[in-house]
Amino acid sequence: MTPDLNRFDTFAEDSRSRLEGALRRLLPDPATSASPRLAEAMRYAALAGGKRIRPMLVYAACRLAGGDADRADVAAVAVESIHAYSLVHDDLPAMDDDDLRRGQPTCHRAFDEATAILAGDTLLTLAFELLSSAGDYSDTARVAMARVLCRAAGGAGMAAGQMLDMAAHGRLQDVAALERMHYLKTGRLITASLLLGYHAADRPDAALEAALIAFGDAIGLAFQIQDDILDVTADTDQLGKPSKSDEKHGKSTFPALLGLDASRQRAQSLCDQARAALAGYGEDALPLQQLADYIVQRTH
Amino acid sequence: MTPDLNRFDTFAEDSRSRLEGALRRLLPDPATSASPRLAEAMRYAALAGGKRIRPMLVYAACRLAGGDADRADVAAVAVESIHAYSLVHDDLPAMDDDDLRRGQPTCHRAFDEATAILAGDTLLTLAFELLSSAGDYSDTARVAMARVLCRAAGGAGMAAGQMLDMAAHGRLQDVAALERMHYLKTGRLITASLLLGYHAADRPDAALEAALIAFGDAIGLAFQIQDDILDVTADTDQLGKPSKSDEKHGKSTFPALLGLDASRQRAQSLCDQARAALAGYGEDALPLQQLADYIVQRTH
Repeated sequence: MTPDLNRFDTFAEDSRSRLEGALRRLLPDPATSASPRLAEAMRYAALAGGKRIRPMLVYAACRLAGGDADRADVAAVAVESIHAYSLVHDDLPAMDDDDLRRGQPTCHRAFDEATAILAGDTLLTLAFELLSSAGDYSDTARVAMARVLCRAAGGAGMAAGQMLDMAAHGRLQDVAALERMHYLKTGRLITASLLLGYHAADRPDAALEAALIAFGDAIGLAFQIQDDILDVTADTDQLGKPSKSDEKHGKSTFPALLGLDASRQRAQSLCDQARAALAGYGEDALPLQQLADYIVQRTH
Repeated sequence: MTPDLNRFDTFAEDSRSRLEGALRRLLPDPATSASPRLAEAMRYAALAGGKRIRPMLVYAACRLAGGDADRADVAAVAVESIHAYSLVHDDLPAMDDDDLRRGQPTCHRAFDEATAILAGDTLLTLAFELLSSAGDYSDTARVAMARVLCRAAGGAGMAAGQMLDMAAHGRLQDVAALERMHYLKTGRLITASLLLGYHAADRPDAALEAALIAFGDAIGLAFQIQDDILDVTADTDQLGKPSKSDEKHGKSTFPALLGLDASRQRAQSLCDQARAALAGYGEDALPLQQLADYIVQRTH
């Protein structure tokens, strides 16, 4: 392993461990909650592991913008809370109807459907509660973070992407339509994670903001292409969820539309594009550039 | 009809009509939305009518706090958007499984279950998007409004109340437990509506803030007692939803625990308590005091 990748592993491990600690602290405690079962379901969904890529982006962007990691904790939990909500709702019987997530029963399987719906609702609400109340931010930073997160998650972002994804089941789309769907469903929240870290640092720098958007939009798409590739090439044990599930659900994928080799090339070219967007930031941009590499090289 | 009640009718009508206009303007437009179907479902749920009590509270509190009605529009839409989201999700098959709401098919009946889940999610997100982006508010007011709304809607408010309500189906509770459940499920959002109006005016006045909380907590409970009374005494045509549904669902109610007469007396006494909280505010508090009367006198 090269020293650089060693260093990235350290950054990734530090971010995950900070995030875990912040999640445990900021998620509601069943012992003191109005509904202990609701708090348990929220913790089950948010603490079940996962790659924690969005929080990593928050931490790395905050550092690049000159803020220390303490400032990024609340923003990292907010975006992971939104991500967890979206997984809980996407897994519901009326949506993707999945029984397994990260090798564990999905929230509605471990609890029940009503509890899963409300746990998702409450994780979504929690994100905005944290951004409006927790941590040490100026009101201007709080408003900027809430704005970024709402736009990425709502009717012009993630929720619209999920609608388009469901409507597309079993229908072949062209690559442009597939990219658009993924941009809405996944890409906007990836870019929002970077902007959350940027606003958490609270040191305005329009050039950096633009570079982070370019970086985020490229890795967001690369992430999705790699997800599609892994769904075809990895097995269920590696993924922690059923492999070939895209095929099973009749979903259009990049490998299906472009072929496996062209999909890999496209992911790599987006990764290069992302790295280039941060080329002017030297040493400080290394964690993000290595994260771009990780996204296309990961095997689960 | 007394001149006072005439005047209240005018206030109520003005508020509803302002709210309708603001909703039409601020809800996503299907023609320009990433997912037209999602935007349609959101409009269907939010524009289906209803008593619009929460927006009325926003307008009245904003006026009492010295702000004009223009300042209250965005806050009024935000709280109605949260209310609409909660109705869409509460009606789902996994929750209360209702087919009819305000005389119309519920959102998952008019569209489908997945769309209704996402429309609810997106109405919830929209509330925070509006508070962070729309209207002419200071960042401090935006943060104060978001904080009030999150706390009322989340795991220490409405969502927890819905969990307790579902857990209570078919089980007899004591009055204290019933009040606690309704405070979480309905009361906190009623009080939050008043505080949204107060913060929208952006003229800090701690005594008024405390009076609005006392007023809101009293009418919130009165509202729920009256709802339970109407469920027993009104018919389906009057309610726009099936009457006797509490009994059908085996839900504990105030009339069942206290009797009808004692329930009416308790509602009236809460109404008096609410009026008293605003006694020092003279003429300007009239719309709110009349709203308290309306809440216990309404027949649907």
